Amino acid sequence: MLINGIATDRLPASDRGLQYGDGLFETIAVVSGEPQLWAAHITRLTTGCEALQLPPPDNELLLQEARQLCAEIDKAILKIIITRGSGGRGYRFPEAVEATRLLSVHPWPDYPRTHYQHGITAMVCDTRLATYSALAGIKHLNRLEQVLARNEWQGSDIHEGLMLDSHGNVIEGTMSNLFIIEGDTLITPDLGECGINGIMRERVLTLAAQLGITTRIEIVSLARLKAASGCFVTNCIIGLWPLRTLDDITCHQAKITQDLIQALREQRLITIAT
Amino acid sequence: MLINGIATDRLPASDRGLQYGDGLFETIAVVSGEPQLWAAHITRLTTGCEALQLPPPDNELLLQEARQLCAEIDKAILKIIITRGSGGRGYRFPEAVEATRLLSVHPWPDYPRTHYQHGITAMVCDTRLATYSALAGIKHLNRLEQVLARNEWQGSDIHEGLMLDSHGNVIEGTMSNLFIIEGDTLITPDLGECGINGIMRERVLTLAAQLGITTRIEIVSLARLKAASGCFVTNCIIGLWPLRTLDDITCHQAKITQDLIQALREQRLITIAT
Repeated sequence: MLINGIATDRLPASDRGLQYGDGLFETIAVVSGEPQLWAAHITRLTTGCEALQLPPPDNELLLQEARQLCAEIDKAILKIIITRGSGGRGYRFPEAVEATRLLSVHPWPDYPRTHYQHGITAMVCDTRLATYSALAGIKHLNRLEQVLARNEWQGSDIHEGLMLDSHGNVIEGTMSNLFIIEGDTLITPDLGECGINGIMRERVLTLAAQLGITTRIEIVSLARLKAASGCFVTNCIIGLWPLRTLDDITCHQAKITQDLIQALREQRLITIAT
Repeated sequence: MLINGIATDRLPASDRGLQYGDGLFETIAVVSGEPQLWAAHITRLTTGCEALQLPPPDNELLLQEARQLCAEIDKAILKIIITRGSGGRGYRFPEAVEATRLLSVHPWPDYPRTHYQHGITAMVCDTRLATYSALAGIKHLNRLEQVLARNEWQGSDIHEGLMLDSHGNVIEGTMSNLFIIEGDTLITPDLGECGINGIMRERVLTLAAQLGITTRIEIVSLARLKAASGCFVTNCIIGLWPLRTLDDITCHQAKITQDLIQALREQRLITIAT
């Protein structure tokens, strides 16, 4: 772990990341020592910094530190946290912000290959996402809703939980974005009021367009999800998992889903062997 | 500062308070070495722990540590943070939670006495509070909305910012709760969907009832606030500040406000001399 370039695993308790969740994070797949989709992660981090009025990260410095941490690693997860550092009285920003930059490496999770071939089991969580505006889409450190939703199930029989907003529309998974398929069209929920704008969500939208699939960003009700001709979740670590079951529903399987898995494999964004 | 009873100002970066804002806090006035309204703070902390499924705090241990930190202090602010500690893969709770307990002491802010006599200048913030349900009322560590709202003004001409919910109703200040007066009735906004259930808010509701004032908890629109016959904000550090101006409006002053300031003085919940 590196904190502001120094090998340490402790930081001041006065850091506003702890005091208020005043910061952002990125979760990045590392393959053969190299962080994947780096430019996309840095672009999102920079966009988040603008929204939170944080100084933008130094791309070259971050990449240098990321490579230093990951040099000897075959596969791992790199997590970057940027906070507003220490200082300020109460919620007020410090007069001179010295952001905290924290890079840490975590083991690659051993997800079964059957998740890709046959799909996962998902549930609809009771914990709802609040309808935001200022913070919608941003991968910030205020993640209590996801923490509560993720703890609604234990054990390994359920692989992801889907979260609704306060209107009852489905937005995303606790750690993933959601897509549904209706005929030949790929749809992902609108994130204008809440949710996290995932890097893999953007990548899948682009890939689908390249494959000639019509894509739309829309409001998705739970009934619409359950009636869809296919659905899957995405993030930068798993790539793409089809849903096999959702609560008591058996999900339909669409050819588009396997086409996208194949395309992600070709781009080395899914690396698990099958 | 004490972290888990040890005098240190650093904690592991893996703490879930930093990683996800997975915890709670209390801000407590200390007078003559003694934390004020202790029982009320511990009750709220315990309620918050239940909501977040955290182990409840050990009241006697916390009080002992608070007194140890504040023994020689005339007036100060004591901040208590409780987090879910380190561990867990992603958002999932650790299998055995070892909560982090953090007590820190901060200088008493020198607010001018004129704030009590003549009232403060407030503005309505652009940053809205999301409409919650699971987290409404809880003093948790996800406070980015307050951070962004508090930074909408600089300098010392404005003393507090009021925050609306996504429906446009007024909920509270960035660091305080709000009350309005209509004739002989005292009203404070309903916190069922968002906002923090303040200790001083509860105390003022109780005091008002003891003084024979009718109290109500209701939805308060911005128009209703602006037309009120008086309004004020409360928290455990300031006690109670009347609003003198709100944006371009001059607020009416109600006798009830000064009656409540007097009652808070008698209970030593406002200690500034006038």
